[in-house]
Order: sequence, then C-alpha cells, then structure tokens
Amino acid sequence: MNTGLTLLILAGAVLALIFAGYLAKKVFKFSEGTDRMKEISKAVREGANAYLKRQYRGVAIVFAVLFVIFLVLALCGLMNIYTPFALVLGGLFSALAGFFGMKIATAANARTANAAQSSLNQGLKVAFSSGAVMGLVVVGLGLLYVVLWYLFLDLVLGLEIRDIANAMLTFGIGASTMALFARVGGGIFTKAADVGADLVGKVEAGIPEDDPRNPAVIADNVGDNVGDVAGMGADLYESYVGSIISACALAVAAGLGVDGFLVPLLLAAVGIVASIIGTFFVRTGEKTEQKVLLSALRRGTYISAVIVAVAAFFVIWGILGMEHIGLYGAVLCGLIAGNVIGYYTEYSTSDTYKPTRDLAETSKTGPATIIIGGLSLGMNSTLVPVIVVGVAVIASFLLAGGEIFNFAATMNMGLYGIALAAVGMLSTLGITLATDAYGPVADNAGGIAEMAGLDESVRERTDALDSLGNTTAATGKGFAIGSAALTALALIASFTDTVTQLDPSFKVAELSLMNPSILIGLFVGAVLPFVFAAMTMSSVGRAAQKIVVEVRRQFREIAGLMEGTGKPDYASCVDICTRSAQKEMVKPAILAIVAPILVGIILGPQGVVGLLAGATACGFILAIMMSNSGGAWDNAKKYIEAGNLGGKGSENHKAAVVGDTVGDPFKDTSGPSINILIKLLSMVAIVFASIIVNVNIL
Amino acid sequence: MNTGLTLLILAGAVLALIFAGYLAKKVFKFSEGTDRMKEISKAVREGANAYLKRQYRGVAIVFAVLFVIFLVLALCGLMNIYTPFALVLGGLFSALAGFFGMKIATAANARTANAAQSSLNQGLKVAFSSGAVMGLVVVGLGLLYVVLWYLFLDLVLGLEIRDIANAMLTFGIGASTMALFARVGGGIFTKAADVGADLVGKVEAGIPEDDPRNPAVIADNVGDNVGDVAGMGADLYESYVGSIISACALAVAAGLGVDGFLVPLLLAAVGIVASIIGTFFVRTGEKTEQKVLLSALRRGTYISAVIVAVAAFFVIWGILGMEHIGLYGAVLCGLIAGNVIGYYTEYSTSDTYKPTRDLAETSKTGPATIIIGGLSLGMNSTLVPVIVVGVAVIASFLLAGGEIFNFAATMNMGLYGIALAAVGMLSTLGITLATDAYGPVADNAGGIAEMAGLDESVRERTDALDSLGNTTAATGKGFAIGSAALTALALIASFTDTVTQLDPSFKVAELSLMNPSILIGLFVGAVLPFVFAAMTMSSVGRAAQKIVVEVRRQFREIAGLMEGTGKPDYASCVDICTRSAQKEMVKPAILAIVAPILVGIILGPQGVVGLLAGATACGFILAIMMSNSGGAWDNAKKYIEAGNLGGKGSENHKAAVVGDTVGDPFKDTSGPSINILIKLLSMVAIVFASIIVNVNIL
Repeated sequence: MNTGLTLLILAGAVLALIFAGYLAKKVFKFSEGTDRMKEISKAVREGANAYLKRQYRGVAIVFAVLFVIFLVLALCGLMNIYTPFALVLGGLFSALAGFFGMKIATAANARTANAAQSSLNQGLKVAFSSGAVMGLVVVGLGLLYVVLWYLFLDLVLGLEIRDIANAMLTFGIGASTMALFARVGGGIFTKAADVGADLVGKVEAGIPEDDPRNPAVIADNVGDNVGDVAGMGADLYESYVGSIISACALAVAAGLGVDGFLVPLLLAAVGIVASIIGTFFVRTGEKTEQKVLLSALRRGTYISAVIVAVAAFFVIWGILGMEHIGLYGAVLCGLIAGNVIGYYTEYSTSDTYKPTRDLAETSKTGPATIIIGGLSLGMNSTLVPVIVVGVAVIASFLLAGGEIFNFAATMNMGLYGIALAAVGMLSTLGITLATDAYGPVADNAGGIAEMAGLDESVRERTDALDSLGNTTAATGKGFAIGSAALTALALIASFTDTVTQLDPSFKVAELSLMNPSILIGLFVGAVLPFVFAAMTMSSVGRAAQKIVVEVRRQFREIAGLMEGTGKPDYASCVDICTRSAQKEMVKPAILAIVAPILVGIILGPQGVVGLLAGATACGFILAIMMSNSGGAWDNAKKYIEAGNLGGKGSENHKAAVVGDTVGDPFKDTSGPSINILIKLLSMVAIVFASIIVNVNIL
Repeated sequence: MNTGLTLLILAGAVLALIFAGYLAKKVFKFSEGTDRMKEISKAVREGANAYLKRQYRGVAIVFAVLFVIFLVLALCGLMNIYTPFALVLGGLFSALAGFFGMKIATAANARTANAAQSSLNQGLKVAFSSGAVMGLVVVGLGLLYVVLWYLFLDLVLGLEIRDIANAMLTFGIGASTMALFARVGGGIFTKAADVGADLVGKVEAGIPEDDPRNPAVIADNVGDNVGDVAGMGADLYESYVGSIISACALAVAAGLGVDGFLVPLLLAAVGIVASIIGTFFVRTGEKTEQKVLLSALRRGTYISAVIVAVAAFFVIWGILGMEHIGLYGAVLCGLIAGNVIGYYTEYSTSDTYKPTRDLAETSKTGPATIIIGGLSLGMNSTLVPVIVVGVAVIASFLLAGGEIFNFAATMNMGLYGIALAAVGMLSTLGITLATDAYGPVADNAGGIAEMAGLDESVRERTDALDSLGNTTAATGKGFAIGSAALTALALIASFTDTVTQLDPSFKVAELSLMNPSILIGLFVGAVLPFVFAAMTMSSVGRAAQKIVVEVRRQFREIAGLMEGTGKPDYASCVDICTRSAQKEMVKPAILAIVAPILVGIILGPQGVVGLLAGATACGFILAIMMSNSGGAWDNAKKYIEAGNLGGKGSENHKAAVVGDTVGDPFKDTSGPSINILIKLLSMVAIVFASIIVNVNIL
C-alpha cells in the first residue's frame, strides 16, 4: 500500500463532502420568499420525502432479501464473502447521495425563485450551487465508498492486491441495485405524474401548466426531483463507482499491481478538486439569452476538464512512469468523448439547430408526420455517438498498449486503457452533474414563481434558467449514456477476467463471435433493451391512467376546486405515483437480474459475454435514439410555443404536443432506464460469475 | 459430379417454371370483366410497367457501372473473374422474376374481381394462382441460376468443387443488388403513393379510399404491386439464392465435398415439388370468415411443409448417410422456426388477438397513447422471434455436429448446419410466397370492384380476400425477416471461411468479441439498421410531400375533377413516385455498400465480422419491431373501422389513423428494407473480401 497516495485519495473524497456541505449551508442562507412560496415548496418537499420514504422502505425489503440470498451463496462458496455487505453498504451510500441531493434540490427551488427577484445571477447561483451539492456528494460518497473498502481489505484484513481487486469488483452491485430503483422507479413516477397532470389539467380542464388547482401539480414537481435529481444521480453514481472498480481490477489483471490500482482512484480525486475549482467560474450578468447563460455554465466544466487533462499527465507519469504514458492518452480519449457526445446530443435536440427546427416544420402535416420525423431524427442521431465511442475505445486500447493483431498477449493493458477512458470521462462528474441537477431546481423554481404569482420579470428569469436547464439536461443525458456504455464495456472486460480466474480453460482470446453460444447470447442481449423499453413505456401509460382517474375524481368530488376555493389533495397523487412506480419496476428489475444468470446457465459464460456485448451495443443506440427523439419533440413544441409556425393553440402546436407526449416516456423513462440495464447486466454477471461458470446445461 | 442428382435438381427448377407457366395460362383464361374494369386494370398495369421500365433503366446503369468496377478488380486479382458476370446474370434473373410476378399480378387483379362475381372460391383461385406463379417463378429461376452456374463451372470449366463453391459464393451479389432496388425503391414508392393519396384524398378532399377521382389512386394501386409483389419477391429471391450458395460453400468447408454441396440444391428441388403439390389443396367454399379462408391457404403450406419434412430425411440419408443424419434435424429446425415466427407475427398484429385489441383501446386517450402503445407492442414482440431463431441456430449447430466447447475443431459442420436450417426454412418458399403475393392481387381486386361499382356482394367477397391478404402479409413479413436473419448468419459464416482461405493467419475461433476491432465493428454494425431506417422513413416523407403537391395541383387546375367530369392525370403521380423512389434510394444503397468495405479497411476482416453480426442482430430486431408496430396499428384502425370503439369518424378512429400513418413506412418501407440491408452487407463483404483482407489501415 502506498499510504501517501491513499491518504490523498481519501482527502479528495472528504474534500468533496466538506465543500458540498459548505455550498449547502450557503444555499440554506437564502430566503424562501413569501409564505405562499414556502407553502408550495413545502408541499413539493413533503411529496418528495413521502416518495423517498416509501421507496426506501421498498428498497430495504429488496436489499434484505438480496442480502440473505447473497449470504447463503457466499457461505456455499459461490460468492465472495464481502459481497453481501458491500451490497448493503453500496446501496446505503447511493441512497445517501440521493437523499442529500433531493434535500438540497427541494430546499433550493423556492430560494432560486426568490433570489431571481433580485437578479439573474443570484438565481443562477442558488440553483447551480444546489446542483453542485448533488454533484459533489455523488463523487465524494462514491470515492469514499471505494477507498474505505480498500483501506479495510488492505489494512485491516491484509489481503493481496489481486484478492482486493477481485472482491471489490462485485462491490458495485449495491449502487447498481439502488440505481435501478431510483432511475427506473423515478422515471416512471415523473412521467406518470407529468402525463397524468397534462392529460386532465391542460387538455380536459383547460387550466395552464403548473396551475395550483391541478391535484397532480405537486406530484409533477416532485417528479422533476425524483426523476432528474435522484434518478440521474444514482445512475451516474453507479457509473462512477463501476468505472473506478473495474479499472482497479483491470489494472491488477494487467500486472500493474497496487500502483495501477491506485491510478483510477487518484484520477477521481484529481477530478474532484478540478470540479470544485470549476464551480467558482460559474456566474453571469443580467442577459437572459441562452448563449450567455450556457457559456457561464460551460466555463466551469471546461476549466475543470482542462485541469484534469493537465493533472492526469502527472498522475500517470508520477505513478506508472513514462513507459505507461500511453494510458494518459486513454484518459484524454474518455474526457474528450464525453464532451463530444454531450454537445452532439445538444445539437440533435436544441431548437437553435437545424434538426429540431426541421422537425418542427413536420408538424404542418399533422401528428403522424412529426412522429415519423422525430423517430427518424432520433435514429439518425445515433451514428455520431457510436463512432465517437468507437474511436475512443479503439484509441484508448491501442494507446494503453493493446494490439489488435496480438490480442491475446496484450489485451490486459488494452482493456485497462478502455476502463481508464471511462474513468477519465467521469472524472469531472462533480461539475457535469452539477450543471445537470441544476435543471430540475430551475424548473421547480419556475413552477413556484408561477403558482405564487411572482412578477413577470421574475418569471422571465426563471424561464431563462429553466430553458438553460433543458439544454444542460440534453447534454447531461448524452453524457450519462456515453459513460454508461464505456462503464459497461469496462465491466464486461472485468467479467471476462473474473471468469478466467474461476476457470483457466476459459480463454478471452477465443471468445469467437462465430461460436453460436456467443452469437445467440448477442441476439438475446440485443433484444433486452427493446423489451426493457417496452416494459417501462407501458408502465408509464398504466400509471398515468391511474393519475387521470384520480384527478378526474378530485375535480368531480371536491367542491370549488376549479374556482380555486377548494383545496386539492396533492398527497394522494404523489402516493399513487409512488406506489405505481414501485409496482411497475418489479418486472423490468427481474428481467435485468435474471437474464444474465439464465443465459449463463444455458449458454455458459461465453454466452453471457455475448449477451452483455449485445445489450451494451443495442442499448447504447436505443437509449440515444429515445433520448434524442424525446428531447427534439420537446423542443420542437417549445419552439412553436415561442411563436413560430403558428404558435400556441395552432394545429401545428397540437401536432407538436402529440410528439412531446410520446417523447416524455422516451426521454425521461425508457431511454435513461436503459443506462441502468446495461450496467446492471454486467454487474449481475460479475456477482454471479461462480454460478455462471459452474452451473451449465449445454 | 453426380450427374443423376444434378439432373434431378435441374428438373426441379424447370418444373417450377413450367408449372408457373401452366398456372399463368389458367389465370389469363379468366375474363377481365366489364370495360370499366379492363380500363382500370390497364391503368394499373401501365403504371406498373412505367415503374418497372424506369427502374430497370436506372438499375441497368448501376449494374453497368458495377460490372466495370468488378471487372477491373477481377483483372487486378482482387476478385473472382466470374463475379462480374454473375452480377449481371444474377440481376437479370432476379429482374425476370420480378417482371413475371408483376405481369401476372397486374393481370390477375381485374380477373379476381370478376371471378369473385361467380363465387368466393373462384376469386380465391385466381388470386392465389397468380401468387403461386410468382412464388414458383422465384424459386424456379433461383434454383436454375444456381444449378446452371454449377454445371458451367463443373462441366465446361472442370473446376474443383472447392473452387466452384468459393466462386459461387459471390454469385448472390446480383440478386442482392437487385433486391436493394426492388425492396427499398418499391417500399418508398408504395408508401409515398399511399400516404400522399390519403393525405389529400381522404383528409383534405374528403373522398373515400380507392376513389377514381383521386389522381394518386392508380399510383397507390401500382404501389401495392411494386412493394408487395416485386419487392417481397426480390427480397426472398435473394434469401433463397443466398442461403443455398452459402450452404453449398459451407458444405465444402466442412469437408463434405460434392455430396454436401448438392444437398441444399436437392432440398430446394424437393421443396419445389412439395410447393406444387401444396397448391392443389388451396380451395374454399362460400364462407367469408377469415378463419375458414385462412385454413384454406394454410392447408396448402402445411402439406408442403410436411412433404419436405419427410423427403428431407431421405435426401440427407441417401446422399450423406446415417452418420450425418443430424443435418436432417437442422433442416427441420429451420422449417419449424420459419412457421413459428410467421404465426407469432400474426398473433402480434392481428385484431383477433389481445395485443392489437389492447392497442385499439389506447386510442381512447388520443394519438399519443396509441403511438406509445404501438411502439411498445412492436418492441415487446421482438423477444419471441429472437428466442426462436436463437434456439434454431444453436440446435442446428449442435445437431449438425458442432460443439460449443470444441468450437475450433467442429465449427465447419456446425455452421453448415445453420446454413441448412436457412435452406430448410426457405425450401417451401414456392407456396409461402404464393400466399403472400396473393395479398396485393386481392387488394387490387377490391380497389377495382370499388372503382368499377360492382355489386355489394362482390365487394364483400373481395374484402374477405383482401383482409385474408393482410393476415398472410403479416405472416409473410415475419417469415421474410426470419429467413433474412438466418441467411445473413450463413453468409457471415461463409465470409469467415472466405477470409480464412485468403489469409491463413485469420482464425475464426479467435475472433474474440473482446477484441476492440470486433467490438467496435459490432457497435457500428448495430447502428446501421437505425440509420438505414431513418433514411428510408424520411425518404417516404419527402416523396409523399411531392405527391401531395401534385394531387393538390390537379384538384386545383383540372376542371370538373371533383365532380367526376374531368379526367385526372394518373401517370404524373406514378412518375413522381418512380422518380422519387429512384432518387431516394441512392443514399441508403451507398451506406449498405460502403460500410463493410470501409470498416474492413479500417478495422480489418475481424471488424467486418463484428459489423455483420451487429447489423444482423440489431437489424433483425428492429425489422420485427417496425413491421409489427406497423401491422398492429393498421389492424387496430381496421378494428375500429369495423364498428368497435366508436367506429369510423370517431375521435378514437382519428387517433388510430395517426397510428396507421406512422405505421405505413414502418411496416412497408423501413422494416422490410432492413432485410435487404443485413443480407447485402454480408454479400458485399464476401465479394470484396480480398480488399478487406489486403487493404488495412490499423
């Protein structure tokens, strides 16, 4: 063990948490504004808490059951003895990150609206700071989790580095399981509430969005937090932890020992410092143009990226020496690829660019053509990210020392390079997640400004902040998908390494794609994202239907609701969403957990490799398509609402609303859920590797 | 050479053509009915001829250019010297099949309508016979093409069987290129005409479907023939030829020599005889219920399948002996898998089953929910076909003698088994294609009955025949996709065999999925179907837009058109569709041809294997999804039109129309085009194998 380096890493993790606490304190110092604002904010907060409470209760049961199963398996020698505990601890850390993120987000919404009364910059500051709290808590807890385990296994138990790496590889399962709940459940919640609120409120009752008379309005606002803050946070927390531990394991497999093991951890620590520095550069003036605001945020992420790009050189050089400096190139590949995919996502979905403007035009010939146009836009937009990831993977493999034509002998270094690219991509997560988690806060602030009847100028500022949030959400989604794909690839590589250790006759170099067990594994893997997406889409439909029924009931039974004299029962809508979300995620969860084990038992470990590769390739593409189609429909609608092509209420607008409604589950439920699927499949395969290797039918 | 067997095979091919001629003569003996019917039928025929003429002109240019390129490459030693000639001859044979199919289909439409005046059975007889002509011409010409080449290379040139097999493997390129034009171009034509005719006719002018006042109505009817007859025929012709030649090549690779080479040919010949026998069992009474009619058609296909199932045993046993009887199991696997996928497609899309009925229910909450429902239905429906193909592939590999854990030593036999499964699936193509090509004839007959103002009872009968056609179209589409996937897999296996011969250092058993060049090839391959689908969907949109403009112009400029006194200019709409189809298919065609070569040059042959596997897996799934979503939307609309859920004109119906319009390019353009993509990619890879092996950047 290199004590100095380990302490440095630990310090980085702790620093992130301390700085997050400092920022949170600053946010809490701002006033929540008028009583009405406090009241609304409180309702959202209570709804979010109710959701979290119920979710954590459900999660606790699942984790308890899994813990027992894992423990039995571990005692039977089919699993590492630490895994059951890592499951619980990992889930706990992820839940903590989600809890803090939600807490700050629901505290910051009214404060952002109120701060926007004094100036745009103040509003941005509050919203962004709360986002930064989320970002830093995620990376801080993520890194802390990994480094604490390392210290325990090394210092307390005195294990060899190879054993540490193997054990720790399974330690992402807690984060993965938690992410499944947060992202899939959250995704179903948020869109059920959104669609349900719109269908009755906007369409049937004819009241505007965010109208306090709508009983589902609070659920809708809660949903923004549940889906975009807690869900996105858990998703990236999983990627962060997953990419780090798989890089650690692959470092050891590549023969780089403790030094190689520490590199990804140190890169993460460097990224934390860079992210913190970056936050200081996010500020703006009074101009509400998107371009100005966007560059304010981007300044922060750019500066962080540059810092990491410089510091990573010294990390690799200092620890592994000049002979392995190619690994530095791998880190850069990841860093660059993440940003390119993020920006390309923005290009594909923002109404300042051609694709979305052209899409808005297709509304002229009705809903069918805008649906076809949006699907085709989404499909088209998958090519560039695939090429970007492809180039990053090949380049990082080669730079790290892997050779295509001497694969068997060089693959370990090359695969380590791919894992480091994932770590590089995620190193600045502290600040990229901040720009992302900022979005729902601004969105909520807009809702509160509307409901509380604040001045038009305030609403204008919160609108500007909100619309910026939509852009960063697009970038963030692209980034989340890209990092999920790279992380999944690193995990697949780690899985093959695990299997090789369990069964020396298993040769990674001989995992021939033409072997039917691999080929069919690939087919089965490729179909999973489609089935998963279908499941989550119909879940949203069913859950939204329940909300529609409930809102209709309230309008019918609560006297004076429409006139504003009766008080709607917000809590019941939140409750319905929560329960639906919990119930609806059972089937997709079972699919994700059972598929790799079942395929492993039938087709063997090589079939599982096929499955994982197929699911990652197809899932990556489908997730991009669904996210981008959805984002583009959303912005095409907003583009029309801004007064183009006939504006609000026109036939074109009606067509665009259809597109947007289809896009809702696309971009906020099914698309992002696929990120979880592809990582969870790999993680499950790793955790159950012993069973997959030892129990075989064919 | 086994002269007796070869003559038998030749006789089978010739028999198919003779019997097709006999059936055609019988069809032509029927009367075309009234002058009005003759007139309409003539307009459709002229439109179809105009389309074919222009398409063949365009195709001729492309083939001429390709011929020159191929010849140069062949003279440089980068290609087999026979390939350029096979390209031309293969294209010619495929074009001939398309020509005869269109000729009989456009001759049978009015005759079917007229025959339906005397009885339902008469109507079915004419329509089905014309379908059988198409089916038998396709298999007859396909088999003739292969056997003639074999005779030439063996008898005339006296080549060794290994050289014959290698040379012939590239001989599918003509059929593939032709299929690209027929399927992609035809798909764009038919949906541009359909959508364009509906948008102005039904929606704007408020005239019913198939109304002779609509200037695009003839183009629409031509489109049915162009897309569903010529397109489907060329698609399956390609699969048929592709599966046979790849099975021949793999037989030789497996060391089974001439005997193994002749097995797939003989199976095809047996299938022809079985198909012919099957046609005699297709007849019905006066009951117009779908179930009765369907069982009339099914009786024919079932009987053919049973005959093949029995005869195949003797083929394998007689030629290869009891030691290779496992190959018989492989043939059965394909035969069964094709039927299961076909029926499952019907289950997913027919309104007699739950999925489509549930989908119709979602129309209650508007267009957005029916779109989400249909997409989710399509995605869900991909799982079963993937599992069916997966089981068929594994089972045929194992039955043939391949071993998962002794892959390197046994793979050749196993892969030959997979190819034989494809041949088995396609062996009864003569009759399965008949039930499929029958559909557009019945559809046209209905249109003619409508336009000619025939009696209500006749219209009822043609409606019954038409609705049966929709069901068989669904089954046929499933079958086409399933066989395309199996054929593509056989072609991929053949590609690896080709590369191994060109470069002995290339080891199929070491095509490790973890090698980044393969992995990234896989990603790139997986993205191609999405991009291809996006391209073809937007093509339909653009072409339909042009039809809309033209139809609007005619309604505006031609006096008395709406009143029925002016005569619409049908030809101009046909011409616009034809030109658009030609123009719009350039980009997708380039994508399909350039991608494997480019990836080969950058990532080497192993990257191409990844690409082909990724494209086949993802394309198979996406094609099923798009076909089934589209089919279900279509039938959900028809279900409502039949008087359910408010019936025609209700809000629910309007929502369902949106679904159907989205579904049109899904099921008739993009979905089926993907079949072509996955086979063409493999065929291009095989033809350009020398370049892929010898020219490398990485």
